[in-house]
Amino acid sequence: MNPSLTSYYARRRGGPPNGLGRPPVAGQPRRAGGVAVRRVANESRARRPRGRVGEGPDGRSRPIGARAGRGPANGSRGGAGFAPKRGEVAMAATGGRRCRRLEGETARAVLANADTLLFDCDGVLWRGEAALSGAPAALGRLAAAGKRLCYVTNNSSRTRVAYTEKLRRLGFPPAEPRHVFGSAFCAARYLRQTLPPGAAAYVLGGPALAAELEAAGIPHLGPGPAALPGPAPADWAQAPLEPAVRAVLVGFDEHFSYAKLCQALRYLLRGPDCLLVGTNRDHRLPLEGGSAIPGTGCLVKAVETAAEREAFIVGKPSRYIFDCVASEFDIDPARTIMVGDRLDTDILMGNTCGLTTLLTLTGVSTLEEVRGHQESDCPARQSLVPDYYVDSIADLLPALED
Amino acid sequence: MNPSLTSYYARRRGGPPNGLGRPPVAGQPRRAGGVAVRRVANESRARRPRGRVGEGPDGRSRPIGARAGRGPANGSRGGAGFAPKRGEVAMAATGGRRCRRLEGETARAVLANADTLLFDCDGVLWRGEAALSGAPAALGRLAAAGKRLCYVTNNSSRTRVAYTEKLRRLGFPPAEPRHVFGSAFCAARYLRQTLPPGAAAYVLGGPALAAELEAAGIPHLGPGPAALPGPAPADWAQAPLEPAVRAVLVGFDEHFSYAKLCQALRYLLRGPDCLLVGTNRDHRLPLEGGSAIPGTGCLVKAVETAAEREAFIVGKPSRYIFDCVASEFDIDPARTIMVGDRLDTDILMGNTCGLTTLLTLTGVSTLEEVRGHQESDCPARQSLVPDYYVDSIADLLPALED
Repeated sequence: MNPSLTSYYARRRGGPPNGLGRPPVAGQPRRAGGVAVRRVANESRARRPRGRVGEGPDGRSRPIGARAGRGPANGSRGGAGFAPKRGEVAMAATGGRRCRRLEGETARAVLANADTLLFDCDGVLWRGEAALSGAPAALGRLAAAGKRLCYVTNNSSRTRVAYTEKLRRLGFPPAEPRHVFGSAFCAARYLRQTLPPGAAAYVLGGPALAAELEAAGIPHLGPGPAALPGPAPADWAQAPLEPAVRAVLVGFDEHFSYAKLCQALRYLLRGPDCLLVGTNRDHRLPLEGGSAIPGTGCLVKAVETAAEREAFIVGKPSRYIFDCVASEFDIDPARTIMVGDRLDTDILMGNTCGLTTLLTLTGVSTLEEVRGHQESDCPARQSLVPDYYVDSIADLLPALED
Repeated sequence: MNPSLTSYYARRRGGPPNGLGRPPVAGQPRRAGGVAVRRVANESRARRPRGRVGEGPDGRSRPIGARAGRGPANGSRGGAGFAPKRGEVAMAATGGRRCRRLEGETARAVLANADTLLFDCDGVLWRGEAALSGAPAALGRLAAAGKRLCYVTNNSSRTRVAYTEKLRRLGFPPAEPRHVFGSAFCAARYLRQTLPPGAAAYVLGGPALAAELEAAGIPHLGPGPAALPGPAPADWAQAPLEPAVRAVLVGFDEHFSYAKLCQALRYLLRGPDCLLVGTNRDHRLPLEGGSAIPGTGCLVKAVETAAEREAFIVGKPSRYIFDCVASEFDIDPARTIMVGDRLDTDILMGNTCGLTTLLTLTGVSTLEEVRGHQESDCPARQSLVPDYYVDSIADLLPALED
């Protein structure tokens, strides 16, 4: 189906795509199989004049909702300057969580109180191969101010190394691979922690996922185009199974096929000793121009439906991805900000883990969605409301001036 | 991926697999792409000595549960001989639906009261290519007694014509195609009823689904191996879309792929005017020997997750498949028996439509599952309890003797 990838596997791993084996050097994978996706920037909504939803009658910022009677969103986070201001809109009836535009003195205070910022990437720092205007400068000033910057992404089609190169290429402050927490890396870490020594993974995914598994010392088979014997399901149902497999890992897989789904099910039918792990549940990867392609969540659902059990998810909103960060660095959640463009992944994960959450409007989610969650009585929806929002992280620049 | 199918499509349709077009004659498709699946016969459970769950202390049959205080499962169904007997176990606390072994006078009465019997096929009449012992004889006697026999199956990988040939081949009484209601036929019927004239369907499925659509006059594209331009998702996201497409139809598709999922999503993103239809939600197709392959439900879930909307399902337990039968024949639900081996499809559909329901233990579901549902307070689970059960439909033979 993709001859270039087939030959890539043959070259890199010295065998067919489904052969077990670890290459001598787990270097950076070629990115032929990576997906160049761009987050939708709903310009009409993201660039709405601030006065409509973001400003009070006095021209100062106001929240689009406020937690009635609670004052700051999180009493332990704010430091100075967090008392509710005139002009804030209270969610009196529902006790809704408030969400304020982050600017002015509030922005200075919030940033001064933070040691660490976790950034989602697509839709927050860049779209496709273009850095968002002002984003490299904002991160440069944060780094210069001594903040720890980490990158937390559900995308499983790039390695840690690939992300550091992209950050450098787009003009962001230099990052080390250990500051990048992609779902491919975190999935490999989870399997390393969970699988018995020598156990292998059957993988629905691409070269980046394979490379992170190799870096973690997890034998694997499956990435790339399916290479199953025979032309029909009845043949696939007889394909050999690797005895060492103790996990099925589902990531982004452009070669996902019924044949692979068959093989995944057959491993999972071995019983609960065979883990089912998914990198993330994102339904779609939006493309520039309003289009979209199916996300890993579709593939995870297909495997879960066949296996009749739920996958362990490592990506946002799972707290496992934050646990990975916290295990590598000395993280104080009360002094950490999660910056993202999606309520159901970035913001939910940040809120779940007790971080300060900041929504940027350069990506998927909108203030209308925030308001809908605020106005709901449902605790699950309230947990999707960020503490703060900005149109773009470039809006943080004034608060970072000396 | 499957050269024989590719050339089959090229021969049969005079164009590439994704080209729109109707062949001059909608004959029976070659069955190269069909799946020869066999239902699991859990012999250890199906052949358990009757005394354990099926007989009372007097050696006569007893139900494994009984609807307390309600008498017959359905007062309009039974005719004579339906008063609760000594030895029946009442579900006193929960008002559970009862399920009795169908034998002796009860069997004679129930069959005498029926005009029509609807049969699921795999696991009820046959497994793979072998008729279940006694099944052809039982259906022969039912036909000789003037009963109308219809065949109601979620399998979308065979046409009506293919089913009649299989019935003949395995020694069942002759059937006409109009007595067969497979989910491929019913899906084509649904689209014919619902789509505007000239509208087409994008199809995840095989040759049988294509043939039924052609017989119904629905233009379609998509069945068979994906033929999308370019090697990567970014290319697939640019693939041409056929303007006439107003539905995505998901059936059993051994060529299901990420590329097809992309294309399905792109059609569905056109908006609610593009229907999403699934043939059925079966999670797995069990194979002889305890193995299984993923069912159409996995593929439907993947598309639903990408599209972020629910499919209309034509197969069991949807009542649409029964409506198809009722539209073709003069059916009195009170004089109709649904015979199947799955509680969550056959029995649920039968109960929903007011039919008498009969579980055979030659396929997927077990009496333990029946008991679990009976003991539940949940109305949804109660609706999975059949009125009657037999070990095999061969058990009906004595009641059909002159």
